[in-house]
Amino acid sequence: MPKMVAMAVPHAGGNFERVEREIPQPGPTELLIRVHACGVCHSDTVTVEGLMPGIQYPRVPGHEVIGTVEQVGTEVHGWAVGSRVGVGWFGGSCGHCSRCRRANAFACENVHAATGVTRDGGYASHMVADASAAAHVPDELDSIAAAPLLCAGITTFNALRNCGARAGDIVAIHGIGGLGHLGVQFANRLGFRTIAVNRGREKEQLARSLGAHEYIDSALEDAADALQKMGGAAAIIATVTNAEAMQAIAGGLGPNGTLMAIGVVGEIAVDTLALLSKRAAVKGWYSGVAVDSEDTLAFSVLNDVSSMNEVFPFADAQAAYDRMKSGKARFRVVLQM
Amino acid sequence: MPKMVAMAVPHAGGNFERVEREIPQPGPTELLIRVHACGVCHSDTVTVEGLMPGIQYPRVPGHEVIGTVEQVGTEVHGWAVGSRVGVGWFGGSCGHCSRCRRANAFACENVHAATGVTRDGGYASHMVADASAAAHVPDELDSIAAAPLLCAGITTFNALRNCGARAGDIVAIHGIGGLGHLGVQFANRLGFRTIAVNRGREKEQLARSLGAHEYIDSALEDAADALQKMGGAAAIIATVTNAEAMQAIAGGLGPNGTLMAIGVVGEIAVDTLALLSKRAAVKGWYSGVAVDSEDTLAFSVLNDVSSMNEVFPFADAQAAYDRMKSGKARFRVVLQM
Amino acid sequence: MPKMVAMAVPHAGGNFERVEREIPQPGPTELLIRVHACGVCHSDTVTVEGLMPGIQYPRVPGHEVIGTVEQVGTEVHGWAVGSRVGVGWFGGSCGHCSRCRRANAFACENVHAATGVTRDGGYASHMVADASAAAHVPDELDSIAAAPLLCAGITTFNALRNCGARAGDIVAIHGIGGLGHLGVQFANRLGFRTIAVNRGREKEQLARSLGAHEYIDSALEDAADALQKMGGAAAIIATVTNAEAMQAIAGGLGPNGTLMAIGVVGEIAVDTLALLSKRAAVKGWYSGVAVDSEDTLAFSVLNDVSSMNEVFPFADAQAAYDRMKSGKARFRVVLQM
Amino acid sequence: MPKMVAMAVPHAGGNFERVEREIPQPGPTELLIRVHACGVCHSDTVTVEGLMPGIQYPRVPGHEVIGTVEQVGTEVHGWAVGSRVGVGWFGGSCGHCSRCRRANAFACENVHAATGVTRDGGYASHMVADASAAAHVPDELDSIAAAPLLCAGITTFNALRNCGARAGDIVAIHGIGGLGHLGVQFANRLGFRTIAVNRGREKEQLARSLGAHEYIDSALEDAADALQKMGGAAAIIATVTNAEAMQAIAGGLGPNGTLMAIGVVGEIAVDTLALLSKRAAVKGWYSGVAVDSEDTLAFSVLNDVSSMNEVFPFADAQAAYDRMKSGKARFRVVLQM
Repeated sequence: MPKMVAMAVPHAGGNFERVEREIPQPGPTELLIRVHACGVCHSDTVTVEGLMPGIQYPRVPGHEVIGTVEQVGTEVHGWAVGSRVGVGWFGGSCGHCSRCRRANAFACENVHAATGVTRDGGYASHMVADASAAAHVPDELDSIAAAPLLCAGITTFNALRNCGARAGDIVAIHGIGGLGHLGVQFANRLGFRTIAVNRGREKEQLARSLGAHEYIDSALEDAADALQKMGGAAAIIATVTNAEAMQAIAGGLGPNGTLMAIGVVGEIAVDTLALLSKRAAVKGWYSGVAVDSEDTLAFSVLNDVSSMNEVFPFADAQAAYDRMKSGKARFRVVLQM
Repeated sequence: MPKMVAMAVPHAGGNFERVEREIPQPGPTELLIRVHACGVCHSDTVTVEGLMPGIQYPRVPGHEVIGTVEQVGTEVHGWAVGSRVGVGWFGGSCGHCSRCRRANAFACENVHAATGVTRDGGYASHMVADASAAAHVPDELDSIAAAPLLCAGITTFNALRNCGARAGDIVAIHGIGGLGHLGVQFANRLGFRTIAVNRGREKEQLARSLGAHEYIDSALEDAADALQKMGGAAAIIATVTNAEAMQAIAGGLGPNGTLMAIGVVGEIAVDTLALLSKRAAVKGWYSGVAVDSEDTLAFSVLNDVSSMNEVFPFADAQAAYDRMKSGKARFRVVLQM
Repeated sequence: MPKMVAMAVPHAGGNFERVEREIPQPGPTELLIRVHACGVCHSDTVTVEGLMPGIQYPRVPGHEVIGTVEQVGTEVHGWAVGSRVGVGWFGGSCGHCSRCRRANAFACENVHAATGVTRDGGYASHMVADASAAAHVPDELDSIAAAPLLCAGITTFNALRNCGARAGDIVAIHGIGGLGHLGVQFANRLGFRTIAVNRGREKEQLARSLGAHEYIDSALEDAADALQKMGGAAAIIATVTNAEAMQAIAGGLGPNGTLMAIGVVGEIAVDTLALLSKRAAVKGWYSGVAVDSEDTLAFSVLNDVSSMNEVFPFADAQAAYDRMKSGKARFRVVLQM
Repeated sequence: MPKMVAMAVPHAGGNFERVEREIPQPGPTELLIRVHACGVCHSDTVTVEGLMPGIQYPRVPGHEVIGTVEQVGTEVHGWAVGSRVGVGWFGGSCGHCSRCRRANAFACENVHAATGVTRDGGYASHMVADASAAAHVPDELDSIAAAPLLCAGITTFNALRNCGARAGDIVAIHGIGGLGHLGVQFANRLGFRTIAVNRGREKEQLARSLGAHEYIDSALEDAADALQKMGGAAAIIATVTNAEAMQAIAGGLGPNGTLMAIGVVGEIAVDTLALLSKRAAVKGWYSGVAVDSEDTLAFSVLNDVSSMNEVFPFADAQAAYDRMKSGKARFRVVLQM
């Protein structure tokens, strides 16, 4: 009789341990998913290293999950057994609170679920997700290719399409890593004048091949100054995780520009007079909900956006995680079940 | 033979001194204005106390100026001698740079003029202004009533109409002083659910009479918490000049909310994860250009928005300035020529 | 044992007949509502006179319904017995189709229900509605006052807040009747320069007392010309049901103006070159879904917008309908159960 | 001594005649331009065939003009002799009327100039244009390549970036001719799911090679139905000049969709109930002003958008015009001076 196998973290700061359980039954609004692939994201550190209070252990991380629906809860509509499905960070929503009814399901008043953090995620052979968190996956994408689009992809795509810039405007992608290498591709396909910003020249050629029109080496020159010389950025998509770097590049915004602060940093210092004199903004953007994932996947297929992945077998989850943490992966790490 | 009389600041940190000069000739793109009234604004401290490098002294402050056109430069179109005219902080624009041609005259690449700071302002019997900085003044407003609308008015009105909130949404006015007492009126007339926030109960009754639907005493309760209990603010118009107060109230934003940081503070600390989880923003807004002044004046007439003013004769400019600095004026100080 | 009593139309073009039935059981996603009041709207003619193919008779009209929840379906969340509830034209949505998930529930792919047209409405003691169609009703409004806001109110309020005009802009309300007398109030409270347009001077005084800043008598002067003289309208909310009148007033749009065609007419002729030379648009707007009703009710309470109603007892539904049809009601007709 | 040579139309409905004149002196706000290339556009028929009242003859047509500045008026700023310059349909603006000051120069209250219609255009060796109508031309584009972008290009690019669709949305280009073959390229580069619609299969392969993701043969199937089967268009860019075709395809709009009516037709019949049930719009869009031309040229360089041109020597202006009128040109006709 088959069992569910998962790589769980026994406690905050622990290593992964292999766990076998009965395959769970989905609740009335849930889906049981057989997992094909799961991306390993830097945000998994929240769970593995216990960076957020209140996480209950053991916990299975993983919020870039692609699989197949194996069972459908009794109140679920719109999903059938055998459908391919994706689940990202967004863990679902109630559908009837004031925010859900006003198209703000990302901020649902009742469900506060983050996949792989407050409920078990995709480092597993099987996983249960709320149907409201599930995205349809287009046939054109295999599961390995699709998985990183559910966090690294949606986070950059959704930030870009909500950053207020118009086609032809200068948009900088700050940080060319897991998020940024996708961000460059999306920015180019959205018609922006795409500027890649990173320390060192090592990634210049790659960034240009992905669609960057210009490259700024922030080790050689002040990135904010360099952007101002071009006329100022309409948007900066800051994927870096260093607060000082993020606050420094805000000076590169042009009139009406927006710094999309999507890299996970804590506090940054913002010069309100500089914002005021430019009518500029610092804005956050939640990665997105299930339909945003679907939009990201569809756009990626239409415009040949793809994640560069290093693939590890499921059993090597620990090695995969360590590789991600090393910062050397080019660019996303994906577990194959 | 008449002369121009001005109250100038001889040097940074100096007091006002009465000056007499020949009445100047306007350049080809300029207007000569006989001043009727000039508001005394907290931003005048920039000039009087020398808070910005590069100001040349002696300098005449004043950027809430109402007067009459006395002479028109040779290349000026659209202005006639005898027209009533207003000049705010915006000191003009070239009209032909890339930013001017793209409706961003506030950030003109060639003219960087701030009235009463980098060129002489309205603490004077006469003043020369660039025609691009001049606003038409409706007959319904007398000059004393109109003057404070050119900075305190435009700053709050323009921030409010660009804050992204929709009619019926919760909008907080943070700080009920010179800016805030106008902000409450504008927010109410724009159809927002208007929340006044101030320390102490002293201004509650006034705030309600001006149009606030609710009042939060930030000395008694945490303003951010209080806003969250109401559902979270779609926008907070932060008119306070205290950085800590401004950064603390950002926690009161609801989903997609925007903190409009218009009070003059320097740096504030912004929690990017909080922004991200709410899709929220911290945004600056330049007070506005000449047409924004015209819109502010017209809206104020249409909807009975008015500034509460303490009026001083021109000769008492020093006393007027000191009164403004005391923080006790209710609420704007205006010089009458 | 209580029964449900309804005034049904036996067939297209028929008169109302009193009907008694067992009180129905709500389905899993439905609510049983005891009706307090129901507005009589010109769109009821669709049902009563059989203007739409496919309506099944007998049919109970009525889509401005206020009542109390008496029973809650097994899968319904967010509603409790005893809550006050409103139901408008929008008859519900599935919640899981592509359009529902993308905030376009008004165009749900699965549910195509119009209250009082494709399913029974509120000319009845009881009514069953899908929970997705139900709006919460604020305590401040009694049921008679609230009912007309669910169609005449939402239709004008929602058109106005989506018309693209900014506060202070010229917005014309074309037709001062059931919709227009609310439209004038909403336009004023949204901060627009509000122009009432109607044939004759009879309604001028009323329009001004409701908040119109100007009045155009379209019998005396060409309304389009009159609007152009003011500078051109940023938006025209066309509530008239006469196609020629609607297409004629499009000429009153200014640059970037929008004609919101919400009055029920069929085809109108549109001069595309005129649109092109002004960057203008003719736009339709669906009245709204349940949260739009809630927004309309809340805004009306906040800003003292109220419908002028003629109230009829439920038993006189035929007389109420005839009064509505006469065009003489001032301005909405409401049935009291 | 050099003279200006032009191909003028002596009277409405006349053929071109070669004219020699003194080279004109530019007025204070004008530029004298030596013309390199001028596109031949279907809108030239307005002048050649006298379709607009009030045109004064003889008149030189041509509103897709690329040249070099030879002389600069005394009040002109921002232009130097020797700069390359483009002039489109937009003939200039005063800069000081209410509309110019509010970023609506296209609808200037004082200047109502259309190049090649109300003032002489570019079928000439030299031309005088108002500096406000002049666009900077990037070095990367030769004059033949750039010319058609000043009308066919700007008209489609500007309509597309103002149509309200988001990246990934379905956008149809209706009519694959002079405008449409550019529209397909722009739509693709803006990230839209691009659907080409034309009668016959003849242009399918080309449309796909230019970037169309799908092709609808409107001779074989109803284009509106075909779009609905895909989910409905977020925008339709209607470049056709046949009113019936334009009004028929409006049925292909999805929720919140917009028909951009940029093809020159007169009246079309619009079903307001269909608009209303979809929250859809019919919108016009003025081709654009000088900065829109600059944006179009820059975007075309950045994204390899190019016009397919048939080039004629200047002396053969009549043949070039006739070729354009034949409808057989692939796709734009350009005069080389």
